[in-house]
Amino acid sequence: MRMVDLIIKKREGFELSEEEIRFWISGYVKGEIPDYQSSAMQMAILFKGMTKNEVSVLTDAMEHSGETLDLSNIKGVKVDKHSTGGVGDKTTLVLGPMVAACGGVVAKLSGRGLGHTGGTLDKLESIPGLSIAIEGKRFEEQVNRIGLAVAGQTKSLVPADKKMYALRDVTGTVESIPLIAASVMSKKLASGSDAILLDVTVGDGAFMKNMDSARELASVMVEIGKKLGRDTRAIISDMSEPLGLAVGNNLEVKEAIAALKGNGPEDLMELCYTAGSIMLVQSNIYKTTVEARKALKENVDNGKAFEKLCLMVEAQGGDVSYIKDPSKFEMAKNIVPVVSKEDGYIKDIKALTIGVSSMKLGGGRETLEDTIDMSAGIVLAKKVGDFVKKGDVLCTIYTNKDEKTYNEIIGEIYTAYSFSTEKVPHTSVIKEVIE
Amino acid sequence: MRMVDLIIKKREGFELSEEEIRFWISGYVKGEIPDYQSSAMQMAILFKGMTKNEVSVLTDAMEHSGETLDLSNIKGVKVDKHSTGGVGDKTTLVLGPMVAACGGVVAKLSGRGLGHTGGTLDKLESIPGLSIAIEGKRFEEQVNRIGLAVAGQTKSLVPADKKMYALRDVTGTVESIPLIAASVMSKKLASGSDAILLDVTVGDGAFMKNMDSARELASVMVEIGKKLGRDTRAIISDMSEPLGLAVGNNLEVKEAIAALKGNGPEDLMELCYTAGSIMLVQSNIYKTTVEARKALKENVDNGKAFEKLCLMVEAQGGDVSYIKDPSKFEMAKNIVPVVSKEDGYIKDIKALTIGVSSMKLGGGRETLEDTIDMSAGIVLAKKVGDFVKKGDVLCTIYTNKDEKTYNEIIGEIYTAYSFSTEKVPHTSVIKEVIE
Repeated sequence: MRMVDLIIKKREGFELSEEEIRFWISGYVKGEIPDYQSSAMQMAILFKGMTKNEVSVLTDAMEHSGETLDLSNIKGVKVDKHSTGGVGDKTTLVLGPMVAACGGVVAKLSGRGLGHTGGTLDKLESIPGLSIAIEGKRFEEQVNRIGLAVAGQTKSLVPADKKMYALRDVTGTVESIPLIAASVMSKKLASGSDAILLDVTVGDGAFMKNMDSARELASVMVEIGKKLGRDTRAIISDMSEPLGLAVGNNLEVKEAIAALKGNGPEDLMELCYTAGSIMLVQSNIYKTTVEARKALKENVDNGKAFEKLCLMVEAQGGDVSYIKDPSKFEMAKNIVPVVSKEDGYIKDIKALTIGVSSMKLGGGRETLEDTIDMSAGIVLAKKVGDFVKKGDVLCTIYTNKDEKTYNEIIGEIYTAYSFSTEKVPHTSVIKEVIE
Repeated sequence: MRMVDLIIKKREGFELSEEEIRFWISGYVKGEIPDYQSSAMQMAILFKGMTKNEVSVLTDAMEHSGETLDLSNIKGVKVDKHSTGGVGDKTTLVLGPMVAACGGVVAKLSGRGLGHTGGTLDKLESIPGLSIAIEGKRFEEQVNRIGLAVAGQTKSLVPADKKMYALRDVTGTVESIPLIAASVMSKKLASGSDAILLDVTVGDGAFMKNMDSARELASVMVEIGKKLGRDTRAIISDMSEPLGLAVGNNLEVKEAIAALKGNGPEDLMELCYTAGSIMLVQSNIYKTTVEARKALKENVDNGKAFEKLCLMVEAQGGDVSYIKDPSKFEMAKNIVPVVSKEDGYIKDIKALTIGVSSMKLGGGRETLEDTIDMSAGIVLAKKVGDFVKKGDVLCTIYTNKDEKTYNEIIGEIYTAYSFSTEKVPHTSVIKEVIE
């Protein structure tokens, strides 16, 4: 078998066989197939797509390119949630404790942020002392004891995805639905959960820019998951404006703490309740999402969800006093309001622009080698649909950068906003549920 | 400027600017842009194409990626012919001497054969002693004296093409019209001729499998040539069956010698007269192709064309006694007829199958490292449209391989043939002329 013939076959729009896909992935991971052939194949896939059968073989080949996690020592139905990424997405920090408080079992591996999107691991590490490097017995013991752990991916998991993603990132082949689906699902499957809830984000700040592509990605992933034996469901959620109000690491942790006390922004709460109720049904704890949602609200109101976060932080070595008194979190030196230059209804707050601006303020990394300023970011004062008068605060920036730098960034933040003289409806965060 | 952004731009179907194309080519030649980004770009170009402006900038950037030849010390209008490759294509060996005999100036750089296609340099080297490594002053002096030289490409010419072609070969991006056009034209332009005649082959044994793509390639190349200041014209010629009867290095030289004496196969003679008459018009030696064709015939009939070949072989150190007595050429050990198994009109002699079979008999190379058996190949006894009876010889193989090996190859040669009970017209070698 020659790789060039497989590239030509895909380029001409034919279906690759299981043997051919496995030849490619195993050869690529072993270094027998060079980057330049893999990048040509990925570009051919971007143009010609893959059949559902091809995507599920690709996912399986990638999943088994390294170790896979065995969670059989953890009792109960392990349920995982995965978001395809966005701006201000602190859902895991809220949802994990909420679901665990209702008896769900959340044994989760998370990732880091890159570019305009944040990562749960970075957010967690803004809590002093907290370690995300928990593995093996310690991970199992923590989940069995408190129902919740969020850890970093071990290096031995899905090496094919690490290599392929790095290559896609520099060869213009990120935006391929089959490749995104196989990347996400191979990691989720290798992480060993029994049930998977996918949060496919759509809009300016997401990979998927429109509903058609979001729906396609969601349905491909749900099908792969089911085919490979996991209860897989998906939500399509809005990422045209940032989720909630806070963007930036410890700013988002503080918002998550507020949300667990019932004081979160409406869109964030709605996403967590919808996702959480589906996860509890997947866990066989509740029969219907209506009952599950009721239980989630009760556990927020009675403080048990917040208590789960405290237990998790403690178990992972973090300083719980920060969770109990969020004013202890490090504050940025410069806290500067960005005020409206006009009257009107906010029509648009481009999530991508806000995400990139937060990164530039110090809150994110442009390359994986960059370090993050945990205190930097942006907190919105208003959301799409809100009315503002000239001089009202649109958002506040938090940064340790100098004035010249942050003033330039403020200029960019203004370009994220557009206004209307006519009333604009508030965005609905849940677009669709696919089961 | 980042290469990944240029890949995405092309992938989305936008036109690359001159600056962007030059950034890619110069970065790639210097090794600053890695193979995996170039291969992704080439695949995106294969799918999205290039505008005429993009192709001419790409050609120019490739042409100037290394040295270019200065032929200004050679008197007269230098005219070059280039074929996009085929099976049994010994045109240069016939055409060069014919045109030179009529006063044309042919200062030609040629290539080697690979896969099923032969190369003029290999054919020339089957003449004992002949050197294709003539450069600089010696090349100029030879052309000024006899009007004809065929040399190998120097390594410093068009390094971008060497690197890009090697990459395309292993990444499934050979079959892209803009990339083929830029590859051919960058080499032709760097070789310094004033006028260029392109022979775009079409059919089973050619890159271009149908008239539409051949026409597109020819017109793109003619336009590039004109845009970059050369008188460029094109012929589209048939390559569904091999050209002439002989396939294989010294077998083709012998056929070329016969052709220069007026005894060549009809299709080869027709191609040489058509191409030669256009080249003489491009050289401003004749006003019309009708007059030029008459002159070419005269110079074949009076022996002057043949004499030019002798002069060239002598000038390049070859043993002219072989040209004067072709029976001196090394003969293969095994000369085996392949006979028809049925009665009928020959409907098809697949050039690709014949080319590959000749290569396997020893007459070609699968990789650039392979050595060639100059005496190996296939000589057709009949062409498409001829009637054969069961037991008639279809072709004869020439090889030094053992019986088991060549019997297998004979089996493959049979698959090249198909027959019809109804009369089949002879193939017309000239499909179209584009000026």
